[in-house]
This record gives sequence, structure tokens and C-alpha cells, in this order.
Amino acid sequence: MIYNVQIKVMPLKDLLDPQGKAVLGGLLNLGLKGVEEVRIGKHITLQIDAESEDAAKQVAEEASKKLLANPVMEFYEIEMIN
Amino acid sequence: MIYNVQIKVMPLKDLLDPQGKAVLGGLLNLGLKGVEEVRIGKHITLQIDAESEDAAKQVAEEASKKLLANPVMEFYEIEMIN
Repeated sequence: MIYNVQIKVMPLKDLLDPQGKAVLGGLLNLGLKGVEEVRIGKHITLQIDAESEDAAKQVAEEASKKLLANPVMEFYEIEMIN
Repeated sequence: MIYNVQIKVMPLKDLLDPQGKAVLGGLLNLGLKGVEEVRIGKHITLQIDAESEDAAKQVAEEASKKLLANPVMEFYEIEMIN
């Protein structure tokens, strides 16, 4: 069966996020009021063909650890969609 | 009050996603089995100081339209966290 998995990869909370800071500056320049912080990460969707939801989650976990997230700078969260 | 808003910006479904294709190749090279499609977008979190949830959502909507998403190639989804 095909499982849809979402993975969110974000910069660690204690780290500066220069991309987010730049976007925050851009939003203020555009005149948007009230935005106080911006953090930017990756949103990844995988389609995984697996025998069970647990097996699909396992593959997503391994993909995150080995390739998608850099644990020195990022954390990830996995969510099954269906 | 401070509202936390998540914005997901993804490549449109009909468009090729070269970054996703590259990551798919990488995952297969690493020996991960079962992954059939990968799509990669941005995950953005905003902290917005606003008077109501609706006002915060409005700011997020405007930010997405004006700066965060390119409607020619991307779609976005806004979600309030708290």
C-alpha cells in the first residue's frame, strides 16, 4: 500500500535562522505589521510503498536521519497523512 | 496576543520538482526501498502579534501572497497552531 508521509525539517530552536531573519526584514519593508519572528525550514512529502504504516514510518525515519535532516542544525517531525 | 502560524509552501502538483527528484535518487542510492515520490517545499513558522486569530491569519495570508509563495510555481496552506 502507498502511504503519504510529511516530514518537517526546521532549524533548531537555539540557532539563528538567517533566512528567517531576511524574510522578517522583507515583510516589515512591505509594511506588514505584527510579525515578530520568522523561521524557515523544509517541508517534505514522501510517497512510500510499504506493507504497513509502521514500516512506512520506519522508512521515513531512516530517510530523515540519513539524508533529509542535519542533526547538528536541524530537527525533524514525521507525520503520516492517511 | 501572540499567535503562532505555520505556512506550508509546496511546488504545484503538476510541476516537476527537481530538488525532490534529486533527493529521491539519493534515497535510492542509500538503499532505502519503497520511496516512490519526493516533493520538497518550505515550512515557515511566523509569530504574529495581533488582536485576534482572524487578524493574525490575515497577516499570514498577506505575507504568503506578497513574499513567501510564488503563485506561478507554488501553492500555500496556512494553519494556526494555538
